[in-house]
Amino acid sequence: MAMRLLIDTDTAGDDAFSLLLALRNPKVQLDAITICHGNVTFDQCVENALYTVEAAGRSGEVPVYPGARLPMMRKPLDAAYVFGKDGMSDANYPPAKQRPETRHAVDAIIDTVMAHPGEVTIIAQAPLTNLALAVMKEPAIAQAAKHLWIMGGTDNAVGNVTSAAEFNFYVDPEAAKIVVNAGFKASLLTWTRSMVEGVITSAELDAIAALDTPVSRFFTRVNRDSLAFSRDRQRIDGSIHPDALTCACALDESLVLEAEDCVVDVETAGTLTRGYSSVSSAILPDAADADPDLAPQVPNMRVIKRADRDGFVRMMTDAVR
Amino acid sequence: MAMRLLIDTDTAGDDAFSLLLALRNPKVQLDAITICHGNVTFDQCVENALYTVEAAGRSGEVPVYPGARLPMMRKPLDAAYVFGKDGMSDANYPPAKQRPETRHAVDAIIDTVMAHPGEVTIIAQAPLTNLALAVMKEPAIAQAAKHLWIMGGTDNAVGNVTSAAEFNFYVDPEAAKIVVNAGFKASLLTWTRSMVEGVITSAELDAIAALDTPVSRFFTRVNRDSLAFSRDRQRIDGSIHPDALTCACALDESLVLEAEDCVVDVETAGTLTRGYSSVSSAILPDAADADPDLAPQVPNMRVIKRADRDGFVRMMTDAVR
Amino acid sequence: MAMRLLIDTDTAGDDAFSLLLALRNPKVQLDAITICHGNVTFDQCVENALYTVEAAGRSGEVPVYPGARLPMMRKPLDAAYVFGKDGMSDANYPPAKQRPETRHAVDAIIDTVMAHPGEVTIIAQAPLTNLALAVMKEPAIAQAAKHLWIMGGTDNAVGNVTSAAEFNFYVDPEAAKIVVNAGFKASLLTWTRSMVEGVITSAELDAIAALDTPVSRFFTRVNRDSLAFSRDRQRIDGSIHPDALTCACALDESLVLEAEDCVVDVETAGTLTRGYSSVSSAILPDAADADPDLAPQVPNMRVIKRADRDGFVRMMTDAVR
Amino acid sequence: MAMRLLIDTDTAGDDAFSLLLALRNPKVQLDAITICHGNVTFDQCVENALYTVEAAGRSGEVPVYPGARLPMMRKPLDAAYVFGKDGMSDANYPPAKQRPETRHAVDAIIDTVMAHPGEVTIIAQAPLTNLALAVMKEPAIAQAAKHLWIMGGTDNAVGNVTSAAEFNFYVDPEAAKIVVNAGFKASLLTWTRSMVEGVITSAELDAIAALDTPVSRFFTRVNRDSLAFSRDRQRIDGSIHPDALTCACALDESLVLEAEDCVVDVETAGTLTRGYSSVSSAILPDAADADPDLAPQVPNMRVIKRADRDGFVRMMTDAVR
Ligand SMILES: [Ca+2]
Ligand SMILES: [Ca+2]
Ligand SMILES: [Ca+2]
Ligand SMILES: [Ca+2]
Repeated sequence: MAMRLLIDTDTAGDDAFSLLLALRNPKVQLDAITICHGNVTFDQCVENALYTVEAAGRSGEVPVYPGARLPMMRKPLDAAYVFGKDGMSDANYPPAKQRPETRHAVDAIIDTVMAHPGEVTIIAQAPLTNLALAVMKEPAIAQAAKHLWIMGGTDNAVGNVTSAAEFNFYVDPEAAKIVVNAGFKASLLTWTRSMVEGVITSAELDAIAALDTPVSRFFTRVNRDSLAFSRDRQRIDGSIHPDALTCACALDESLVLEAEDCVVDVETAGTLTRGYSSVSSAILPDAADADPDLAPQVPNMRVIKRADRDGFVRMMTDAVR
Repeated sequence: MAMRLLIDTDTAGDDAFSLLLALRNPKVQLDAITICHGNVTFDQCVENALYTVEAAGRSGEVPVYPGARLPMMRKPLDAAYVFGKDGMSDANYPPAKQRPETRHAVDAIIDTVMAHPGEVTIIAQAPLTNLALAVMKEPAIAQAAKHLWIMGGTDNAVGNVTSAAEFNFYVDPEAAKIVVNAGFKASLLTWTRSMVEGVITSAELDAIAALDTPVSRFFTRVNRDSLAFSRDRQRIDGSIHPDALTCACALDESLVLEAEDCVVDVETAGTLTRGYSSVSSAILPDAADADPDLAPQVPNMRVIKRADRDGFVRMMTDAVR
Repeated sequence: MAMRLLIDTDTAGDDAFSLLLALRNPKVQLDAITICHGNVTFDQCVENALYTVEAAGRSGEVPVYPGARLPMMRKPLDAAYVFGKDGMSDANYPPAKQRPETRHAVDAIIDTVMAHPGEVTIIAQAPLTNLALAVMKEPAIAQAAKHLWIMGGTDNAVGNVTSAAEFNFYVDPEAAKIVVNAGFKASLLTWTRSMVEGVITSAELDAIAALDTPVSRFFTRVNRDSLAFSRDRQRIDGSIHPDALTCACALDESLVLEAEDCVVDVETAGTLTRGYSSVSSAILPDAADADPDLAPQVPNMRVIKRADRDGFVRMMTDAVR
Repeated sequence: MAMRLLIDTDTAGDDAFSLLLALRNPKVQLDAITICHGNVTFDQCVENALYTVEAAGRSGEVPVYPGARLPMMRKPLDAAYVFGKDGMSDANYPPAKQRPETRHAVDAIIDTVMAHPGEVTIIAQAPLTNLALAVMKEPAIAQAAKHLWIMGGTDNAVGNVTSAAEFNFYVDPEAAKIVVNAGFKASLLTWTRSMVEGVITSAELDAIAALDTPVSRFFTRVNRDSLAFSRDRQRIDGSIHPDALTCACALDESLVLEAEDCVVDVETAGTLTRGYSSVSSAILPDAADADPDLAPQVPNMRVIKRADRDGFVRMMTDAVR
């Protein structure tokens, strides 16, 4: 039986590759793509998702639902410095034939999950505004979803917007806090792991380019700016793929090599730390020892501690063949 | 010419070893030991410092000044779960002959620094309350001190009280924030480095014990509880020495293998992140790209990125011979 | 032409009287009652609204839409200490004949407003969760609504949950912050004014009781606990009617005797001040004088500074005849 | 027996009049004037205090101790828009003969209080930095002081810097929080009361001017800018005297007509509310009813609820005869 999937995405760069993994996998039934504000302008995110469906040869088969155009409490940000103005390394693709649905992403999420209780896996690879609104409107989706994969936050490590915060959580910390505390069966794939197991090396990227299929050409073209940024800024000889790695793990659980049930929460109040993700750790003293004012807490999420990079790269490579 | 030094300490466990490094080094003139609340009860911290001076064979030679008994804004904490009730692995040493000075630590800091402008190195290895009060009372010490070494915070990594915060910064975040922004020429040795280059392995500890000198016996006895905690909790085969590593680097600059001038600041407002230390990073996008609302900032501190563990262990071993 | 109205309410006590004002006014077309969590358990709020429609003799004529059962970020509170366990002074009314709609309150708000652009007045007399979700899902309602009346916050004065915060804003500060900054043409009726012009005196309540109509009996019965609380706690010889006063002003603009366009915002980050409403004031220095770090801001809302208490009491009395 | 007094002041405008009340009162032994940063530049505050001592005919009799030049956590502010550039309505007085002491204000506070346990009344009419440093350095002063009068904060009402905060608390909220929670026997005179009972009307000011004594001329000259600001901004026909009213109440307890023991605390974490003073109120529900997460608290301070304005004006008028 196919795996039912819904992907919430601010489609730009790596978001597109995550979509490819799902769109090109015959064992996956991608019920919906829902769009959240994020990497580039909202309308561009919608277009990028539509074009990606087409590039994957699936035009008209997977509906794309526009959702929240704005974070809850702050101005939207823009990651054009990583992904280019159009989020696709300025490939400036033409509009896809498929057009967006009129139904709102929030309702698409609720209806898809509630129509198939216990069956739908959600991948959240954007700021969590859509998911937060969905679970606020219909709290039952937390129990009804099969599993929620979140790409976001760090594992108590350096972020990618501020020292303290990763993009998806930084852009809408309130939404992130709502979702991680909403009671989903959930897994967190952090920026921290992405910088290790989410890297596709230059050699591997060359191999993908050498495939020279339509989809591999799409991949290589769209990956251009992000690769340049990773090389310049992170001094990594390759590009970083948080969303695609998250999708890969969601599609094939065997890629999760190490994981831990943790207490995850999101800072919404700090002045230096808005969007910081706190992840509990076994090396910390017991709460009661550390500070009697700290309440002990129950793990609310599985945090991925190590993934199978080689397996991920293989899956990505196969998807663009 | 001897190096003028002042150590501010909440003496327990590793604090004592840091004092040993300074007390047993003939090239160091330790002008003052000032006591801050912290690891165990304030009066016990004072006694532990006095006893350590005696154990180092320096009784009566280095004055010990009691300082702030309380953090600025919160109840004091207690790290007896690491260091034993008396902070010395429950060795229950008798009172030392030397008694504490009547002058307040804050004035001892100000007077020592201002009496020798440009000459006094300060090592701050406790919550930063004394230093904050000193620089608030006499802002000129920031320029007049030769260098300030701070053991505290993390390098955007897991803490040792909460996921977000290290003990010294957690106990008095306001004091930490005041001090890191006061304009000292300063170096930060974080908990993050301590867990790597501050580790003395079990084998090395055995070698120290085998010296069987009075000072090595003191070291081994006092280190007992901390070693047990590191093994049980951090799964490290050895004990962790943040304060001694900081002192070692202060005494011998060649132990600093890698360092970076960074923007360091301390979170005082968060609900999950009180005491979090934000450290700027070269892998982050420029502030203006990341978020137009973020102001670019000027580095205020050198952050130690790699220290010479072997060199540190040699220095520590020599100090207890 | 009738005035199109939608009331969002956590129906208990005074919420019911506000509904009466609208339900009993022939010039008002009450398109929808939407229910938000708040004063008592969510399901009880729904029942209270349905019963009130029936008590007003309008059973089956005005749909009641259940909405958000929970605040965005915190546990729901309970004001049973003011309104009794059932929110109706423990009158324990039987279930009404009319049953709640299946459509969600958030969609009812969006659809009602968007179906009649520029025509629908909204009264928000509960925590602002439903409104926040609605404007997050469909930002266009902010421009399309004719006017939004908010009962909530204080005019820089003492609250009714904490010193700093009024109930509706305290229960969901994030929602309040979203709504006041969403761009609605809006008026704020604060708890501060409610304690003055929202008071119906004991003598006036006696006159209402003496009418001895079915609706006046309903009013008197439901008002019992709230009246007792006002007398005991606020030392007011009468009962306080924030929601009804808000509705009265919305229905008859001439009841607004004084008002001022202000910058209104809501504190979400404080430890003592969560839910505090900041209202700009002409007696303050210019922002640039007061603190160069403060940005000058543009008024986003009309704040009612004085209402016509006598006129309100007359309207309320007429409504229960 | 004379009343022992110490005044901590950022001398400008009304600060000077408070000093006059103490300096011109034969029953008061003013042991020390300590200077805190605040209204105008620090050095100008010192000069203004020295000049005021001279203007009161007491040159050389009351020592003036300079203290903290900076708030704990933020840049100093400036209230020149109220008091003129020199804080004295640009009277540009020449330097006084008496010069400042070399001893630090913090030590002057500690030593004065500890030398006469149970005898010294402190009036704090500036940001609370000096007092906070003093009680941090020597916690025993909280018990040893006879009484601490604080001019600062509001009684849950509009501030005078932001809507939420009064100047003294806004400039150094951390210091204010430290002091109100330090265990002093204390009274709070708020900006809220100052705008009522701290007003000297134009007619009364004219009567003061008509006295035409050296001290009344000093008063009238120094009051010029503040009077203009009150008229323009607060639409008050008179000038506002928070510091002088506080001193008057401290000197003559019979001027306190109404007061209440309250829980007072200061917000240091909010984004709109830094420096907000929370004052408990009898009209609020019990903490356990209002929100089970709120802990009930014990009153820590007497809050003045009504003072004798006429008595204050008489005292002020007599002081400048
Ligand atoms: Ca994404
Ligand atoms: Ca220490
Ligand atoms: Ca209500
Ligand atoms: Ca003052």
